[in-house]
Amino acid sequence: MYAVVMAGGRGTRFWPLSRESKPKQLLNLRGEKTLIQETVERIAPLVPLDNVLIVTGAAHADDVMAQFPTLPREQVLVEPRGRNTAPCIGLAALSIKKRDPEAVMVVLPADHVISRTPAFIDALSTAISTARKSNYLVTVGIKPEAPETGYGYIEGGDPLSPDTGSSVLRVASFREKPDLPTARSFLEKGTFYWNSGMFVWKVSSIMKALQETLPELYRELLMLEGTLGTPDENEAIKEAYDRIEAISIDYGVMEKASNVLIVPGDFGWNDLGSWDALWAISEKDGNNNVLRGNVITADACDSLVFSKDKLVTLVGVDNLIVVETDDALLILKRGHSQDVKNAVEILENREWKGYL
Amino acid sequence: MYAVVMAGGRGTRFWPLSRESKPKQLLNLRGEKTLIQETVERIAPLVPLDNVLIVTGAAHADDVMAQFPTLPREQVLVEPRGRNTAPCIGLAALSIKKRDPEAVMVVLPADHVISRTPAFIDALSTAISTARKSNYLVTVGIKPEAPETGYGYIEGGDPLSPDTGSSVLRVASFREKPDLPTARSFLEKGTFYWNSGMFVWKVSSIMKALQETLPELYRELLMLEGTLGTPDENEAIKEAYDRIEAISIDYGVMEKASNVLIVPGDFGWNDLGSWDALWAISEKDGNNNVLRGNVITADACDSLVFSKDKLVTLVGVDNLIVVETDDALLILKRGHSQDVKNAVEILENREWKGYL
Repeated sequence: MYAVVMAGGRGTRFWPLSRESKPKQLLNLRGEKTLIQETVERIAPLVPLDNVLIVTGAAHADDVMAQFPTLPREQVLVEPRGRNTAPCIGLAALSIKKRDPEAVMVVLPADHVISRTPAFIDALSTAISTARKSNYLVTVGIKPEAPETGYGYIEGGDPLSPDTGSSVLRVASFREKPDLPTARSFLEKGTFYWNSGMFVWKVSSIMKALQETLPELYRELLMLEGTLGTPDENEAIKEAYDRIEAISIDYGVMEKASNVLIVPGDFGWNDLGSWDALWAISEKDGNNNVLRGNVITADACDSLVFSKDKLVTLVGVDNLIVVETDDALLILKRGHSQDVKNAVEILENREWKGYL
Repeated sequence: MYAVVMAGGRGTRFWPLSRESKPKQLLNLRGEKTLIQETVERIAPLVPLDNVLIVTGAAHADDVMAQFPTLPREQVLVEPRGRNTAPCIGLAALSIKKRDPEAVMVVLPADHVISRTPAFIDALSTAISTARKSNYLVTVGIKPEAPETGYGYIEGGDPLSPDTGSSVLRVASFREKPDLPTARSFLEKGTFYWNSGMFVWKVSSIMKALQETLPELYRELLMLEGTLGTPDENEAIKEAYDRIEAISIDYGVMEKASNVLIVPGDFGWNDLGSWDALWAISEKDGNNNVLRGNVITADACDSLVFSKDKLVTLVGVDNLIVVETDDALLILKRGHSQDVKNAVEILENREWKGYL
């Protein structure tokens, strides 16, 4: 049993707290621990730290290692550049294959929030036992709570084993982010699940699937295989990544493969895609505020404040998100957090790299 | 001709920029110059700096002197504690009397804004020439532009000299801050003026008026007279101020005296009583924003931002006042600036003196 934690995201949606040098997964957005620390701890009952691989970008490898002081260096796989999830997963599979070709691997994004860990462990255990005894590619689908248009959906099909009462389903179809009417119809039908980006499979199963669906990527991986653990490894990965096409595992593999299953899950999952999402899932005070740091309020409600150094004082305001960092201050209307990217774009255009 | 600039205010309404150690009149709220510097410059065509007295509190004397490097030390009168305007004006009158008992003195608050200086100089010139040749107490009344409930009003009566066409009026009555219906009726009648707190009179006239209306204060002033300019001056003033009752010149003298005149003025006056008032009188950009410092906006309007060190970024917000200082950050809904005092009260109750 291995776990692969994908920690490659840039996460400008949490600007100014998230930066190029400090993406979302490395942030302490919810309390004491960072999202990646929470992710690794959550999986611990199933996969001990010895069997955890973290895949991240070169700019973040040091920070990742600092957050896991006991994690051996060789369990951090460093991608020379982001190429989306398929190459990331392929590289991790290759690395695990070298240790144990028959291993089962769990793939987890580093930056999601899960509020009910026991239910998560249950769902994952089901996925693991299913993947272990078969060649299926198993994905974890989230029972939707709202007609979200920001997530991909997976349509569940027939039960895998109608006689056993198991919850595992065959996949009828993958659907990209829908418009609102479509999302509403998905929710009504009750057979659609949010694509959580969590996968479970045997190393041999995903390697075979890569060979069939992404032969060019598979060929690059084969060429890399001999260099892993040698002094040539880094240079070989760098050259391969220069050639490898960026493509997601969903689009590149899952939507094309025929042996895909879905394990439905309902464990308070959130991909924490924005400041709005963070406010929504956070515990609030009596005025529906989420206040971190030195903050006083006089008639203020429905707001989130992250104060770092300064005394932040809210008077007569509502539905604001206020984030103070060493050098920047964001004041955002709640519900508009998708527009943070517009501010980041302004910074990019002005070449204010210090703020990015 | 002497000018007395009253600079005793504490000005918590501009917190966190204004502090106990840095009240409103010492702030640069509008541009290059502080309000007190603007006040002294504005009067310069009528009263050169040699004849300007500034009355301020002990905590602010150094700052006042720093803002007027060429002003002789003895032209800054330091009150050991605030006792409202009547003692302040009495002390200044005493000081001028010592130089020239027949002088005319102009009394000006240090922290008001005037947008049309030539019209202000005109009105003041009329007041000065009226006061010089009589014993009248002359006040400058502002032609109201709106039914303000935050100002006191003065009702104009008969013209002083109906034959000359002069604008100078006798005063029919003083009115305290009215409720809104009353303020509306004042505006409709057209004979009411805002009480600007600006006065012109001969030193001998105001001393005589103090003797009649505030005999106890007058007695204290008489006792002080011999100590002015001696080593005993500071101690004598301190002891007198321990005994002197706090009272405004309006309530203590003007409302009781019978020889009061009003010179109507219309010169873009504003007492700048709040952040809202500052937004209202400031020049705006195309989105109706007033932005000072390092600020970027993405869909933000009708707001005022004072940034000091940090890059302040507004996304999707409107009608906010945002003020960053070294140690604090205020985020205020426009229209609620009267509630800033509630936040200051919280600080006082927590004994967070560093922020006051």
